[in-house]
Amino acid sequence: MSDTTSNQMWGGRFAAGPDAIMEAINASIGFDQRMAAQDIAGSRAHAAMLGATGIVSPSDVEAIRKGLLTVLSEIETGQFQFSTALEDIHMNVESRLTEVIGAPAGRLHTARSRNDQVATDFRLWVRDQLDATDAGLVALMKALLTQAEVGAGWVMPGFTHLQTAQPVTWGHHMMAYVEMFARDLSRVRDARKRMNESPLGAAALAGTSFPIDRHMTAEALGFDRPMANSLDAVSDRDFALEFLSTASICAMHLSRFAEELVIWSSAQFRFVTLSDRFSTGSSIMPQKKNPDAAELIRAKIGRIFGANVALMMVMKGLPLAYSKDMQEDKEQVFDAADNLMLALAAMEGMVKDMSANRESLERAAASGFSTATDLADWLVRILDLPFRQAHHITGALVALAEKKGCDLPDLTLADMQGVHEGITDAVFEVLGVHNSVASRLSYGGTAPTRVREQVARWQELLG
Amino acid sequence: MSDTTSNQMWGGRFAAGPDAIMEAINASIGFDQRMAAQDIAGSRAHAAMLGATGIVSPSDVEAIRKGLLTVLSEIETGQFQFSTALEDIHMNVESRLTEVIGAPAGRLHTARSRNDQVATDFRLWVRDQLDATDAGLVALMKALLTQAEVGAGWVMPGFTHLQTAQPVTWGHHMMAYVEMFARDLSRVRDARKRMNESPLGAAALAGTSFPIDRHMTAEALGFDRPMANSLDAVSDRDFALEFLSTASICAMHLSRFAEELVIWSSAQFRFVTLSDRFSTGSSIMPQKKNPDAAELIRAKIGRIFGANVALMMVMKGLPLAYSKDMQEDKEQVFDAADNLMLALAAMEGMVKDMSANRESLERAAASGFSTATDLADWLVRILDLPFRQAHHITGALVALAEKKGCDLPDLTLADMQGVHEGITDAVFEVLGVHNSVASRLSYGGTAPTRVREQVARWQELLG
Amino acid sequence: MSDTTSNQMWGGRFAAGPDAIMEAINASIGFDQRMAAQDIAGSRAHAAMLGATGIVSPSDVEAIRKGLLTVLSEIETGQFQFSTALEDIHMNVESRLTEVIGAPAGRLHTARSRNDQVATDFRLWVRDQLDATDAGLVALMKALLTQAEVGAGWVMPGFTHLQTAQPVTWGHHMMAYVEMFARDLSRVRDARKRMNESPLGAAALAGTSFPIDRHMTAEALGFDRPMANSLDAVSDRDFALEFLSTASICAMHLSRFAEELVIWSSAQFRFVTLSDRFSTGSSIMPQKKNPDAAELIRAKIGRIFGANVALMMVMKGLPLAYSKDMQEDKEQVFDAADNLMLALAAMEGMVKDMSANRESLERAAASGFSTATDLADWLVRILDLPFRQAHHITGALVALAEKKGCDLPDLTLADMQGVHEGITDAVFEVLGVHNSVASRLSYGGTAPTRVREQVARWQELLG
Amino acid sequence: MSDTTSNQMWGGRFAAGPDAIMEAINASIGFDQRMAAQDIAGSRAHAAMLGATGIVSPSDVEAIRKGLLTVLSEIETGQFQFSTALEDIHMNVESRLTEVIGAPAGRLHTARSRNDQVATDFRLWVRDQLDATDAGLVALMKALLTQAEVGAGWVMPGFTHLQTAQPVTWGHHMMAYVEMFARDLSRVRDARKRMNESPLGAAALAGTSFPIDRHMTAEALGFDRPMANSLDAVSDRDFALEFLSTASICAMHLSRFAEELVIWSSAQFRFVTLSDRFSTGSSIMPQKKNPDAAELIRAKIGRIFGANVALMMVMKGLPLAYSKDMQEDKEQVFDAADNLMLALAAMEGMVKDMSANRESLERAAASGFSTATDLADWLVRILDLPFRQAHHITGALVALAEKKGCDLPDLTLADMQGVHEGITDAVFEVLGVHNSVASRLSYGGTAPTRVREQVARWQELLG
Repeated sequence: MSDTTSNQMWGGRFAAGPDAIMEAINASIGFDQRMAAQDIAGSRAHAAMLGATGIVSPSDVEAIRKGLLTVLSEIETGQFQFSTALEDIHMNVESRLTEVIGAPAGRLHTARSRNDQVATDFRLWVRDQLDATDAGLVALMKALLTQAEVGAGWVMPGFTHLQTAQPVTWGHHMMAYVEMFARDLSRVRDARKRMNESPLGAAALAGTSFPIDRHMTAEALGFDRPMANSLDAVSDRDFALEFLSTASICAMHLSRFAEELVIWSSAQFRFVTLSDRFSTGSSIMPQKKNPDAAELIRAKIGRIFGANVALMMVMKGLPLAYSKDMQEDKEQVFDAADNLMLALAAMEGMVKDMSANRESLERAAASGFSTATDLADWLVRILDLPFRQAHHITGALVALAEKKGCDLPDLTLADMQGVHEGITDAVFEVLGVHNSVASRLSYGGTAPTRVREQVARWQELLG
Repeated sequence: MSDTTSNQMWGGRFAAGPDAIMEAINASIGFDQRMAAQDIAGSRAHAAMLGATGIVSPSDVEAIRKGLLTVLSEIETGQFQFSTALEDIHMNVESRLTEVIGAPAGRLHTARSRNDQVATDFRLWVRDQLDATDAGLVALMKALLTQAEVGAGWVMPGFTHLQTAQPVTWGHHMMAYVEMFARDLSRVRDARKRMNESPLGAAALAGTSFPIDRHMTAEALGFDRPMANSLDAVSDRDFALEFLSTASICAMHLSRFAEELVIWSSAQFRFVTLSDRFSTGSSIMPQKKNPDAAELIRAKIGRIFGANVALMMVMKGLPLAYSKDMQEDKEQVFDAADNLMLALAAMEGMVKDMSANRESLERAAASGFSTATDLADWLVRILDLPFRQAHHITGALVALAEKKGCDLPDLTLADMQGVHEGITDAVFEVLGVHNSVASRLSYGGTAPTRVREQVARWQELLG
Repeated sequence: MSDTTSNQMWGGRFAAGPDAIMEAINASIGFDQRMAAQDIAGSRAHAAMLGATGIVSPSDVEAIRKGLLTVLSEIETGQFQFSTALEDIHMNVESRLTEVIGAPAGRLHTARSRNDQVATDFRLWVRDQLDATDAGLVALMKALLTQAEVGAGWVMPGFTHLQTAQPVTWGHHMMAYVEMFARDLSRVRDARKRMNESPLGAAALAGTSFPIDRHMTAEALGFDRPMANSLDAVSDRDFALEFLSTASICAMHLSRFAEELVIWSSAQFRFVTLSDRFSTGSSIMPQKKNPDAAELIRAKIGRIFGANVALMMVMKGLPLAYSKDMQEDKEQVFDAADNLMLALAAMEGMVKDMSANRESLERAAASGFSTATDLADWLVRILDLPFRQAHHITGALVALAEKKGCDLPDLTLADMQGVHEGITDAVFEVLGVHNSVASRLSYGGTAPTRVREQVARWQELLG
Repeated sequence: MSDTTSNQMWGGRFAAGPDAIMEAINASIGFDQRMAAQDIAGSRAHAAMLGATGIVSPSDVEAIRKGLLTVLSEIETGQFQFSTALEDIHMNVESRLTEVIGAPAGRLHTARSRNDQVATDFRLWVRDQLDATDAGLVALMKALLTQAEVGAGWVMPGFTHLQTAQPVTWGHHMMAYVEMFARDLSRVRDARKRMNESPLGAAALAGTSFPIDRHMTAEALGFDRPMANSLDAVSDRDFALEFLSTASICAMHLSRFAEELVIWSSAQFRFVTLSDRFSTGSSIMPQKKNPDAAELIRAKIGRIFGANVALMMVMKGLPLAYSKDMQEDKEQVFDAADNLMLALAAMEGMVKDMSANRESLERAAASGFSTATDLADWLVRILDLPFRQAHHITGALVALAEKKGCDLPDLTLADMQGVHEGITDAVFEVLGVHNSVASRLSYGGTAPTRVREQVARWQELLG
């Protein structure tokens, strides 16, 4: 099914004429075979229900059940021959079932249509992805917690505009990403709950006159309930779009972290060392370590959000109930899901393997008078100066330190009192990066105490 | 602040040199003044907390409280002079507060930064939009319920590929949209719950050494809790992105319904008549009624999802914590929110005003042998024929009817038995569009009984 | 390389640990093998130049030349074993070359880097797509010209807001799409001209100290010139983005035409009959013909523009020169190109096969007083009435016709003169849909004469 | 026209009922008044043509001409009262014209429709933007040329993966952006040429029976020719989409440069110093300089490409000829154009003002054995070693230098010969960053000679 080059396709396959073109644009078996397991699970649930409601005889149902297991086994062991002429996974499975069990296979499609069948298969597939994303997020969060616990007290620069603003702790920075991925997790779980409804039994679009039991098939497939409107059941793709938008926000978080890792790995920053496993080197420049995995993770938002755009565009303005346009839904979701899983796994691996360069971080945190706001806050808090006056005095002290070529903690008390006589020895308790971070004890603040509390909270939540 | 033409802007304002360019690109007061009420609410909560914790004296806090009310009143009555030189809403308000109350104003910014302030303001603004979307969705769903209740038994064509597939009921079609908008509502409520956390007190990015009470300000502003990580609090824009992706899916639903209304309003369909209020006419072609509102609603997904793309692109790859790029968040969300509200209100108005053309709908439903599947299902259900054989017989009967120039219910029993002798008089109970829809009694099916149950369920849920 | 389900991938392959994850995210051979022909063409040009400039000996160059032909032949005949461990197409080819010719293979990479190599390969691949798009557009335009020529005088409704506005001709409508696709063609040709520059010789990013001749390799590969800046040469992906945006606008045109075909195929419109080859039917409803190909073409804009979004997002904010993020460029372009070719070919096939239902079109064109503006224009043109007064009189005449249950041409002269006495017999020359279209003789107008001129112009231009 | 908060809008304006909602969603005067100058220019050309062809009398045409100038003057001086009840700019202008000149105003709309009128206005507006973009790009390129000329010989690290790969020159890096913006310029000029066709005279959609002269109006408005198909003329928005995609690629280039400026401004890099005018500082941390303008420029791709997505989505699947959806085109283009101009102007200003920190750049370039590839190339070039062996020797020499704590040029010849005895004194000519860049003399390479040639070429081209 692959083409060496697209020109050959254009010049060759299409030259075969309209029938080849229609087959190429119409057939979905090239990709929807990934839903084979879901398709067979759906058929098994449907067949069991047809038996339980007396719509199909017990012997036929038993034949179907066994036959479907045979087909599943053939697919799982790679013995199944997929056929493009049979267009999609549903027809491929049904056709093989007929070969295996004969006439009873013709009863399976009773009270069902390809419209509700494909909606069921795809929903089951997406639900699996939501579960896999859940697991991937939890694993990544645990890796971050380990980093945060070890480095709860390590000091690094807190940046705004990529300029040092105030010292923060390594653990605090790691925990910021725990919060982001926790929101992703929360979105994944909400999405799963919302989409866990069964379209099976909606038939073509109007429901059916057979006395089917949709609650029974819903339960068998792990759905919370059947969908309440048959037109909606076959025309809805919200579950795919919500997966894609949730995946996109997660990929955005990954891109931010990846960007930091790329910058932090530069010779100019040297904040972290990535493991060789997630980098590539140069045969002649041994110190060069390209953060390939981080860069690829940073890029993944492109195709994941691109898939979101693609499907949103497909669904725009489609009248009810089913239009063939909707066949374009699967490849987008497949690709986005694969790449999200890959990006989460690669990020988890990198986080586990990476080492923070504690000295570089602390040195960078201490430069640039990064505790100037601590000094200003001290003047407000202890001397009760108004905010603006405190800022003025701090500016003068920074200027003095700059002139003397030293940092704020290196000024003498006399230097300090020369600028404002009220300053006491106690001021030195807030200067210096360790004092600074230790003092930020407000809830959610960067103080190691606070960070350790958050680590503990999340460790308990994640189990 | 408006420009006659962009060329004048280019040739004029920019010719003024770098300072004018920097002011033009940097200042946000042109749009963030829409958050004035939120900014002042946040400041009032912060000031009250500074008083309660003893960080600022009771008298200063009282002066600030009164001053803020004065400023709010000036803004609400249109007397406030916004200044571009003061860049943003925060500085505009603080500057005016200083004019009004003098020195105590300088205490307000204690233990706070513009970073957590803007995060708080914007979050409050977005929360208001989620509430407004909630209300707009409920109103639209109620309008749909009214249509569904009246037309629960009206028959219309159920389309796949815009080809008549099976008859459905008008009420069932309306209820499909109720389900879609209900999912939107569910997403809105999940999003609100997830985002209802307070960033206030995160300060610049690291928390603060002042003994602030973040739970108190959170509660005062209606937040469920303070955010747990200060870096995350100032760098997070998930709440805006989740609003945009939720709004986009909703806009997609609106585009589908609007497309149907445009098609249904065509001379060829004539399924609905839109009211004059939501259409425009022609001075010389009195029967012409352009569905302008429907077309504009169909188009709104463009700018709403465009805003989603825009903000996702801005956030891609941004290092923590705050970068100025994030200033581009507001205009996108403002525009998307305004247009979503407008589209929901216009759709609600159209649905309330529109009349289904019952006769056209029924006539269209009855054409094209739309009950052929009912016949096939009857053969399976009653005569216990296999699916494929039932289809074969049905095809023969349809061909016969076509040859005789009549519809399926017009065939005689003798005609029927000529094709398959087992057919009995009972078959006529499923032919004809009313029989067809009445028979689709499966849960979620189009039978009027089922539709009325769903209408009743939703009426109770929405109150 | 395929996975049955992503869960298995997640649970299985990733469980193999970091090395498997890194290989999965890092290797590109799974997709970049499609550039094998381009890679070998680039290497042949490079080797020939190394020989001509004396950088590599003639015998080594000859060995390389022969070896590359062998490798190409192995790939084209499907005998080549691609290896994921060798990561990409470049290493796969070079490694095989070494097996085939031994030591001289080590000279091929002199004065070259993977950075300029991949840029060259990908540019050649995209250039091929631009040529294929060119051919596909020309073929589609010719199919439209045939439709336009045959139906230059057939009358159909001209719609605004999907409401009949004025009669137009079938040929005129077809020619509107010829104009659209002609602009696509013009964009394709501009893009090809702009991108036809050679990155080869830029080496890693800085150029090289070897005395290479970049003009020679550029010429050998059909490029107009070498790129003028080596940093730009390896970091530029404009050519891919311009292909994608050009493809997206073309896909938008296709979506508009496809939408019309879907609507025109509905039972309510019946404006066209699509051939069986591009539709699917129903086994029991013989008149049902689902316009599957049209719907799929309508949907293709999703993935094509989604690819544009994806690559734009990847490139956003990437520092110079090469970042691994850029490896995400190819799959997007491959998929978009394949689907654009498919959509163009399918549309060409459909247009060739479809039949306009001349009677339905004319009947629809004549309904709804569609020549009311012709009447108003006549009053202005012949009686010299002001525009607004002419509209008022026309409205009165339409109302009269409506009351009498007839159309405008069916009114008597007396009826007309009862509303405005100046009206003469000559008015009937502009009423009736054939008169109407024949009268619109302004340049670019719908008159059959004008349409035939345009058909002739394009036939000559396209040859 | 502004709303304090959207909640007030929702609760207030919409409570006024359906008429207020329809006005809010339907009226375009709030934004299309920006096309006033274009609208009047179009009307003047149309009126002159109506006179020249004898369709309207000379005296009426003269009255219209004078009246339009009066209206234009009122708008330019801010005296014009725009009315929402009159919906759009066209009706606002026509209505005022009627007040000013009375009856003759009624002749202006002869042989014209709002459909071709708005298409003409918008096309003229977009053409102005293409011209402004052209000017903005040229100005930015000139600023880059000045930087490149001054720093043609300054050495800096050339990065791949944000890791130092090889030394390049500052001038070469600046010239890479000149090439990128030159492609943008080329796209702008192609787009302008393609879109410079007149829709005027297409009337509603079918052309007209009046003997108009479309070539005359086209020429008067500076168009190259009239559009050849009236349906296409009123339904085409390619010119807007092509502007947006061209603007988006340009914004992508700006985002890359802006990202570099942000990184280069960090304390860790210190490669450039941005001027105070395009940065913001801190009142207490004097050395802190936030690169606000660079960050905002980096973000602009969001809204510009977001607008592209928005309009593409609006146009997807729209049947011919005019649909009201298309009214959503203008605000997107207005916003994208304004922000592109702003970003170009701000970037030009920053580039003019910024200073490269020559010492930091050179120091960074020299670190990390950045000339290792020069050494390897020398071994191949001079000693004729195979590529792979040369790499092996280089690796050994780098390891030796690392062990000795020195850089490659600091090794003695004896050190070198200890690793490979063939190495001669001449090797030192390629070591050291200045030698390295000077040696990369291949066309497009980083050698100062080559850079100066490119600067001269562009200076001549840009005039």
